[in-house]
Amino acid sequence: MSRYWIAIDWGTTNFRAFLMNQAQRIDQINHPCGLLSVENAQFGPTLYAMLQPWLEQYGKLPVVMAGMVGSQQGWHEVPYAPQPCGARDLLARTHAFTTSWGSPAWIIPGVSGTSHFGQPDVMRGEEVQLLGLCQLHPATHHFALLPGTHSKHAQLVEGKISVFSTFMTGEIFSLMSQRSLLGKDLPEQQEDNAAYLLGVQTALRGAPFTHLIFSARTRRLAGEIATSHVHSYLSGLTIGHELLAIPAGQQAWVVGSPALTARYQLAASLMDLQLTPVNGDDCFIRGLSHLFSLIQGIA
Amino acid sequence: MSRYWIAIDWGTTNFRAFLMNQAQRIDQINHPCGLLSVENAQFGPTLYAMLQPWLEQYGKLPVVMAGMVGSQQGWHEVPYAPQPCGARDLLARTHAFTTSWGSPAWIIPGVSGTSHFGQPDVMRGEEVQLLGLCQLHPATHHFALLPGTHSKHAQLVEGKISVFSTFMTGEIFSLMSQRSLLGKDLPEQQEDNAAYLLGVQTALRGAPFTHLIFSARTRRLAGEIATSHVHSYLSGLTIGHELLAIPAGQQAWVVGSPALTARYQLAASLMDLQLTPVNGDDCFIRGLSHLFSLIQGIA
Repeated sequence: MSRYWIAIDWGTTNFRAFLMNQAQRIDQINHPCGLLSVENAQFGPTLYAMLQPWLEQYGKLPVVMAGMVGSQQGWHEVPYAPQPCGARDLLARTHAFTTSWGSPAWIIPGVSGTSHFGQPDVMRGEEVQLLGLCQLHPATHHFALLPGTHSKHAQLVEGKISVFSTFMTGEIFSLMSQRSLLGKDLPEQQEDNAAYLLGVQTALRGAPFTHLIFSARTRRLAGEIATSHVHSYLSGLTIGHELLAIPAGQQAWVVGSPALTARYQLAASLMDLQLTPVNGDDCFIRGLSHLFSLIQGIA
Repeated sequence: MSRYWIAIDWGTTNFRAFLMNQAQRIDQINHPCGLLSVENAQFGPTLYAMLQPWLEQYGKLPVVMAGMVGSQQGWHEVPYAPQPCGARDLLARTHAFTTSWGSPAWIIPGVSGTSHFGQPDVMRGEEVQLLGLCQLHPATHHFALLPGTHSKHAQLVEGKISVFSTFMTGEIFSLMSQRSLLGKDLPEQQEDNAAYLLGVQTALRGAPFTHLIFSARTRRLAGEIATSHVHSYLSGLTIGHELLAIPAGQQAWVVGSPALTARYQLAASLMDLQLTPVNGDDCFIRGLSHLFSLIQGIA
């Protein structure tokens, strides 16, 4: 069994790799060479170029990958595991292969299911963070928020993902602030907590979303928000709209970077919602370490 | 008093002018020289160039304008008239001036107020269509939908706009279909009523909007909608979300082009909502004719 191995989160726009000594990270690479930037499906050569310093030092290290790398547009399409889904369900569908330079490699599947609102839903990458959360904070039930471009709200029962919903919060915020009338002719933006909280509070009144966000224009016209705080206000509207979907009184984990989880906690302070932050990298590493230990146990 | 005059709807992206003989339109210009395309605030010269054939034939015709031409980014900022707002309230704030070539000219103000959902709201241009609707179909109460980039839902009492709400339906549809993950890697799109109605039906279940629209991705992944029908489905989601804001059992006018009003009627057929279509140009012309007759009565 190898002590050293490489954990990778390979998404659409980002690539993150962790050099691991068993369950401890000893080095890290962040690079914007997401899947969209890989030309002519040169996934193997791209990965080799990224990992070369580690491979030269440690040899043909095992490589365990999660995220959009397993999608149709990724390196190898790995079909979704259906909910309810725990570590062993993921393992049963994990794609194993050997890279051209001889590293044993695995791609963890995503999860598919039906959302809290009866719609089909999918995730790729977040399932590893959710498993990690259960390892870090064992409990019978978990409710977790994973904020981001496509935020996920997931319920877990005994370590299995039982139901989850996607919210396009980050992507809609970015399109509305950069491409819509709401973001037109703005000066340089400053983060402003008061404008952000006004946005959250406005969203919590429950107006239809396509009406709600027009208030970023009318409040600016009326002088109620400064032109330099429109992005903060819009961020409050989109995050408030997302949080309104969570039942009152819910206790939830919020998994992500400290900056992003703090932003969600600030919004939750206006609601009957208790959020406990957990570091997203820690969850990813712990989840993938758990899966790798199961892979090694089987091998 | 002049028999001949010119009615103009000058918006952000489009310019529409009608040569009028009293209340009858006798000619029409549609041109993409919206306000955004006017450089260095050359509004007068741009307007003259557009109207030159008519002005040469008929002389210094009176010009009555509505729309974003009266906004901060327009020719002359005309402050909003507050709701409740009827024809005489608009008239009291109409900006009168003389063009450089000697035409008497007027810019009709927009309307500001508080929406059905307690948010500040504004319109510019639609107030003229709403007045026209009241002239064409007199009644004590009107509820009207004006679909578009920024759809308006307006209530009128005795010909006065009493409350209205904006929905960014058209702009969000366009951004999501052209710029978001939902519209990525799509083949040429075909209009498909079944996909559109599936979108409407899905929206009517009331899921939060930023979750709702993710179904355009998951239904495509699941093969439930064809890749060539994603725009139709997304159109159904956004229009369904907008219509869900209207109380059940409401009778409403839908004011716009025949193609767009038919699309809304199709969606309404799935709901407890009766929509009666009215041509948007007819409403605009009738509304502006009414305002011009009042202007002439005063003069």
